[in-house]
Amino acid sequence: MSLGSRFKAAILVEQKKPLVVAELTLPETLEIGQVLVKIHYSGICGSQLGEMDGAKGPDRWLPHLLGHEGAGTVLAVGPGVRKIRPGDAVVLHWRPGSGIESVAPKYRWGDETVNAGWVTTFNEMAVVSENRITKISDDFDLKIATLFGCAVTTGFGAVVNNAKLKIGESVVIFGAGGVGLSMVQAAAMTSANPIIAVDVFDGRLELAKKMGATHVINARNVNADEEICNILNDRYLDVFLENTGKPENIELGYKITGNKGRVILIGVPRKGDNISIYSLPMHFGKLITGSHGGETIPDQDIPKYMRLFSEGKLHLSELLTETFSLDHINEAILGMRDGSISGRCLIKM
Amino acid sequence: MSLGSRFKAAILVEQKKPLVVAELTLPETLEIGQVLVKIHYSGICGSQLGEMDGAKGPDRWLPHLLGHEGAGTVLAVGPGVRKIRPGDAVVLHWRPGSGIESVAPKYRWGDETVNAGWVTTFNEMAVVSENRITKISDDFDLKIATLFGCAVTTGFGAVVNNAKLKIGESVVIFGAGGVGLSMVQAAAMTSANPIIAVDVFDGRLELAKKMGATHVINARNVNADEEICNILNDRYLDVFLENTGKPENIELGYKITGNKGRVILIGVPRKGDNISIYSLPMHFGKLITGSHGGETIPDQDIPKYMRLFSEGKLHLSELLTETFSLDHINEAILGMRDGSISGRCLIKM
Repeated sequence: MSLGSRFKAAILVEQKKPLVVAELTLPETLEIGQVLVKIHYSGICGSQLGEMDGAKGPDRWLPHLLGHEGAGTVLAVGPGVRKIRPGDAVVLHWRPGSGIESVAPKYRWGDETVNAGWVTTFNEMAVVSENRITKISDDFDLKIATLFGCAVTTGFGAVVNNAKLKIGESVVIFGAGGVGLSMVQAAAMTSANPIIAVDVFDGRLELAKKMGATHVINARNVNADEEICNILNDRYLDVFLENTGKPENIELGYKITGNKGRVILIGVPRKGDNISIYSLPMHFGKLITGSHGGETIPDQDIPKYMRLFSEGKLHLSELLTETFSLDHINEAILGMRDGSISGRCLIKM
Repeated sequence: MSLGSRFKAAILVEQKKPLVVAELTLPETLEIGQVLVKIHYSGICGSQLGEMDGAKGPDRWLPHLLGHEGAGTVLAVGPGVRKIRPGDAVVLHWRPGSGIESVAPKYRWGDETVNAGWVTTFNEMAVVSENRITKISDDFDLKIATLFGCAVTTGFGAVVNNAKLKIGESVVIFGAGGVGLSMVQAAAMTSANPIIAVDVFDGRLELAKKMGATHVINARNVNADEEICNILNDRYLDVFLENTGKPENIELGYKITGNKGRVILIGVPRKGDNISIYSLPMHFGKLITGSHGGETIPDQDIPKYMRLFSEGKLHLSELLTETFSLDHINEAILGMRDGSISGRCLIKM
């Protein structure tokens, strides 16, 4: 497999339509800072579902590739690349790390051009920007490694870097997908209490319990607001981690946190979805802030969390509930939407 | 003058009505941590106007005293008070400092009881909590000293502690009363650029220019949004300091600051006045946060700023545009509302 050769990819051709799986052609050369990677596994993050749905409005990059967490092997490096070499096992991530931020690649699809960002992972091969790649140990399981591209680092980063959660603090994790379940785990490792996970799918809530949630709430069956208040009794809520991006959930978190509480937004809102809040509590110390991938610093955080995993202190195999082939990626996406997939779903190339 | 004796005070008897100036009786004894102060001067802060108007809703403490910045002389101290002695010149402030937080005093008004907080200053005498008092040098002008109770410390604190304004950053100060004018001065001392002051009264804007505003906008005559954008040209706004508490002004600040910009709320909103904002920029680093008196630490900050004044580096005399007697406090309040008073108005006891 080399430059100029063909590879299979899932392409977003039109918003609100299934992805098109087709063969594309790699560029003939690598530009400065670009790295050619053979991808073994990709995760699917909720934000790709948002991209497909046009959550941020019209998409001027169509047709384009997708995906922002993956693991693979380096095949070739462009001029200037110094932190990785051909043969290296790597994690692909969307938060920028050290190294060159290259120009984004373009691929040929017959006579058409297909766009891509600095990293995409719903494709067998990818031209990736050096700063979106982190070298890992050769013997690290590439299925597990995939999770370090986003789910683990964003979830842990939101808890550690954004919320700065402390021992004994109360926390609600609203939305228990791959990122949310990582938050539950990080909250448990921080000895937060209680750790309340909210979702609309029981399968995810079962996983949340395994990851260390002290309480779970299915918001489809009960009033989450009331249930959370019942669990807290007369305590204030210290931290609310919001993974859905929905105004009503953000507003709920802002309402139920105490005057010194922190509302951390991880799920991004749809275009035009404003929140309506009363700013007075901000004067007393209430914090509402957005997370950008948990403010992850890939070069530092990925090795740090991988060490924890290697020493048996992270439960990540349990997160990997399903694996699909690239040809069946639309089924995987459907399974994420209808809740039949509980953990992080992998695409095997 | 001693415990049990009579003194004149301006009392809030009913919301949306003028204050009632009458004689009250001091308690017979001082409780633990209480300090009896003869007040020489009080400032009037916009927040007292909000209190009179019932901005936060019904007021369960009526009738009560008001005012939170003042300067005076200590007459007597209650048990446990260690940081001040009778005879000390002091500043009275609402942010808690070191020392005991005492119980709040109650005063007699004929057969009625009049409530008061840990500090009130619209009264000739006050029983004040030790932690709301800071001793100052005997030769410091008490008129100027009054401003250190709120206007200077809140304004400077918002710039220094909340916004963490840096050399060359662009800043809008929305609302140029006593606190806002202090912000203009602090912004100028930080070499921010441009420094845009917005108000609806020309008198205040004239003062803002003297304090170092590079541009002033009268929002009654022109569209502030457009004017600010014209001044910035194609630059982003780094910092927006909001002193009015009005949702439309908070939303304007949130809209016009850049993705890494900071919106600092100093003016408090009226009850039920929600803001409507799009949370996406928070993920990229936009900050919206409330200030609590500029997070002032009175024991540290008051002496620090007083040294600057003593060395001629603060222009505070210019802020003191009018002085009224306590009997005429309602005229002073009227003058603040209609803009005929431009700077900080003092009440001389």
